[in-house]
Order: sequence, then structure tokens, then C-alpha cells
Amino acid sequence: MSGDNIIDGKAFAAEVRARVKAQVDRLVAEHGLKPGLAVVLVGEDPASQVYVRNKAKQTVECGMRSDEIRLEATATQEEVLAVVDRLNADPGIHGILVQLPLPDQIDESAVLDRIDPDKDVDGFHVVNTGRLQIGLPALTPCTPRGCMMLLHDRLGDLSGKHAVVVGRSNIVGKPMAMLLLHANCTVTIAHSRTKDLPGLCRQADIVIAAVGRPKFVQGDWIKEGAAVIDVGINRIPKEDGKTRLVGDVDFEAAVGHAGLITPVPGGVGPMTIACLLANTVTAACMAAGIPEPQVTA
Amino acid sequence: MSGDNIIDGKAFAAEVRARVKAQVDRLVAEHGLKPGLAVVLVGEDPASQVYVRNKAKQTVECGMRSDEIRLEATATQEEVLAVVDRLNADPGIHGILVQLPLPDQIDESAVLDRIDPDKDVDGFHVVNTGRLQIGLPALTPCTPRGCMMLLHDRLGDLSGKHAVVVGRSNIVGKPMAMLLLHANCTVTIAHSRTKDLPGLCRQADIVIAAVGRPKFVQGDWIKEGAAVIDVGINRIPKEDGKTRLVGDVDFEAAVGHAGLITPVPGGVGPMTIACLLANTVTAACMAAGIPEPQVTA
Repeated sequence: MSGDNIIDGKAFAAEVRARVKAQVDRLVAEHGLKPGLAVVLVGEDPASQVYVRNKAKQTVECGMRSDEIRLEATATQEEVLAVVDRLNADPGIHGILVQLPLPDQIDESAVLDRIDPDKDVDGFHVVNTGRLQIGLPALTPCTPRGCMMLLHDRLGDLSGKHAVVVGRSNIVGKPMAMLLLHANCTVTIAHSRTKDLPGLCRQADIVIAAVGRPKFVQGDWIKEGAAVIDVGINRIPKEDGKTRLVGDVDFEAAVGHAGLITPVPGGVGPMTIACLLANTVTAACMAAGIPEPQVTA
Repeated sequence: MSGDNIIDGKAFAAEVRARVKAQVDRLVAEHGLKPGLAVVLVGEDPASQVYVRNKAKQTVECGMRSDEIRLEATATQEEVLAVVDRLNADPGIHGILVQLPLPDQIDESAVLDRIDPDKDVDGFHVVNTGRLQIGLPALTPCTPRGCMMLLHDRLGDLSGKHAVVVGRSNIVGKPMAMLLLHANCTVTIAHSRTKDLPGLCRQADIVIAAVGRPKFVQGDWIKEGAAVIDVGINRIPKEDGKTRLVGDVDFEAAVGHAGLITPVPGGVGPMTIACLLANTVTAACMAAGIPEPQVTA
């Protein structure tokens, strides 16, 4: 095992951010367009605060405008919707992200539906879901977009490859399947009801594991040389009573078969914020009616 | 060959219409709700006129309100949009169908996008596409809905079956894949770039052929006992200089392997209008906030 087949997600995310920064520099220089991302945080959840802070930091580092809107944990539904409406109307804001979870008194789906689909950088709005399926220009969910960037980066053209997506969630499995299909892969969507999942996975040139079950995909399910993208993040107990993170793939068993594999942690995870920034650039370009600048990292 | 495996689409469509009529009778009796379908025809295209007449006749036979709105071939974009707006606002109309093709001066996609998604009985609107993918209540395209009705009718629960959808169009392949996925099938979407399509089809418990290529799917691609749904309608020349219709499947070669197969003509085709009527009932029930009446044919 040389380890050459193991993706360094942290390094790849840094590459993506460098590309985003180069795009932003060109948008500012050539079009006077500075992409802006607004993050809405309701309440004092400590994990959310860390996450929002990291997003703001990386947004600024890429040369973009970063707005943080904080509301008390006691905020009403109307107050949160009023913030979304104001951001929808702000021409300097191209992406809006409402940090989840929201307090119990707030109807999450009503808030997310209120976001202008053209500013929906999470890509979960029904209109973006529809646009993605139809093949219209769309904002796509961050994690699937990141996985596609990685696959294109390492494998180039994906045309004709057989991709097996294990898991059919709205935030990963289904949009991932659509993106792979548009990249001309043959796509199989498998799930808990699938018969002979090992045999199905063994046919795959690309396996996407997104089921949320620790070490579910076994090493001998992987065809020699296949690309394995592990989207799972599962916390399991260690012998010392602490916990550790593992993915949906039995990494130690699969790494000897895969031509390419993402570890957990340090694989897909670090790419998510980078793709949020990439989505903000996409949204800004779509709003301005200009193509995204092509840059190299 | 007993022929028991050959679906009579005309008879099945009649069953669906009978079910729709029974649903309409119950909606009228129990809720005072009479579903209404409006068809908009622009110009004098003879084929469209025949099709619109058939729709109106079947709509009335099922006990529903049928409106036909005819505009001159010289109608402007604004005139067509004004008709759509008026129908969107009419509480007695639950389904709107704009007959295609439209004259050259009319922007088709602008007209279709203008239809209220809740009245979009064709199921092609971006919002319905998104709802379908997410798994929200949606109006689904007629042909895929008809294929699902047929499969459920003959096979019952589809859970765990491997369905191979050959073709990835927005009007058949992709919505079909989503419906099969929601029915707990393992779903593979294949297309022109797929490698070893014969081998892939041979794994399928259900083959959906929707590529638009005459007799493309060969008999020896079909696993013994598999269900074969042929959505293709292709006109090919006969020896006498006339033409005939064939599907995307080599029917004569496949019928000996399939456990269930739809012929062309007389298979999926006749079901389309029946499913349009079923969609109008669905739209009326969704608008009224009541569940669809469960009836037997």
C-alpha cells in the first residue's frame, strides 16, 4: 500500500478554495462583482457557532462579502422570515444559508422554502431540486457537488462508468445520482431494500457510500481499482470509552482494493464549506448573467 | 406462447378510466367536488385537434368538467399567457393542459412555466419535478404514472426488484426512475453511453425501454420472467411503402422471455389519457385538501 490512492480531503478543499478565490478576484476585477454570502444563526448552539465562524472566516479569505445575522433563541417565526425576506431583496447578497437546527418554535421547512431559489446555496429548495433533475442551471447540494469535483479532478471524463450510489437521501443520494447521470455515468441507486448489494457494488467503477451506517460497505464489495467516495460520518465508541469517527465504508479493508478512496475523517467532510463558497460564486454569476470564470488552482 | 404475458393496454386504460369515474362519483357525492380539466389549443393542427377532442370526450365520460380553449394560430404570447392566468385563477379548473406544439411565435417553456404547479397535470413543471424527487406530494408525468399503475396492478409490491430504465429523458426516464425508487426498487438508469447494456438488462426484474430507437432492446437481453414495459413509439417503413408503429423493444423476440410485456401499439400508449384524467383527480383532491377516494374498478 503506497497510500497514493487515499484522497487528502483537506488538501483538496484548499485547492477548491484557491480556485474560488481566483474566480472571485476575476469577478471583482472584470465585472465589479463581489459575491456575498449571508449566514443566519438563531440561538446559541455551540457547535453551530463554531461552524458559522468557520464559514465566515473562509468566506472572507476567498475575497467575498460575509454577513452574519444572529437572532435570539426566542426569535419568532415572523422574525426569521423577515430576515430571509430582507436578504432575498439585498442585491449584494448572492447566497443565503440558514444554520440548522432551528429552535422548536420555528418551522424549518417554511424558512428554507422562503429563501429565493437563486440564492439557495444549500441547493435543497424544491425548485433547485427540479432544475437539477431536468438539467437546467441549478444550485446543487454542497456535498454531492464536492464529490463530483473530486471525481472529475482525479478521473477526468466519467462517461460510461458505472456508479453505484448506496443510499437515497434527498441531501446526498438522489442529487448525487442526478449529477453522475448528467456526467454520462450509468447510475444505480441502491438502498436498504436492495438485494445482493455486495454483488451490485462489485460491478461499480465508482461507489458512493451515503447510508449513515458505520463500516457498512465491506472491503470485498469493491472491484479492484474502483473509486470509493465515503460520505458517511458516524461516531462510534472506542475501547477507552471515548468515541471516534468512521465512515460508511470499512476503510482498512477497502483501501487495498480501491484505485481511489476517501478516508473518514479527512475525506469528503472538509470539502463541504469549500463547495458552499463555490456555490456562492455560481449564484453570483447566475444572478449577474455571466459565465463562471475558468481558473486553475 | 399463451399470450397471457401480453398486456392489453386498451383494456387496462379502460379499467383506469372506470376507477377514475368511480373516484369522481364519490368526490361529487361526498364532497361536492367536481374535478375540472382545461385544454388549451392554439391553431388548427389536425393531429392536435383529434387528440384534444379525445381528451374532452373521455374527461366528460368520467364525470368531470371539460373546458376547451381555442386560440387562433396567430395568437400572441400575451394572449396565451392571459388564458393560462385566467385558468390558474379559476377554482373550478384543477388541471391545465396546453396542447403542444405551439406556433413559432409562442415561447413554449414560458407558457408551461406559467401554469400553477398545483394544476400542472402534465407533471413537467420544475416544481413538480422537484417535489417528485424529494418525495413530496406531486403531480407526476402521465406515462410514468401509467407504467407504475400497470406494474403495481400486475406485480403488487415492487420492493427489492431491480429495475433498469433505458433512457434518461425528462418526460419518461428520470421521473420513471424516481417513481420506481420510491416504490423501493433498486434502480439503474442506462443510456447511450452505457457499457454492456445487454448484460445490464439481463439482471433486471423490470426493464423500462424509453430510448426512441425502434426494436433497440433485443430478446436475449431479457431475463426469463422479467417485466418489460415498452414506452417507445417509432414509425418505420413497411415493404408496401406504408409505415407501421413499433416500440423500443424487439417484441417478437422478447415475448418468449418476458413474464409480462407491453406491445406497441396497444400497450403503454392508450394509458396516457387515462393517467391525465387520474392526475386531474389527484390535483382536485390536493387543492381541496382531501385524500383521493380509494375505489376498485
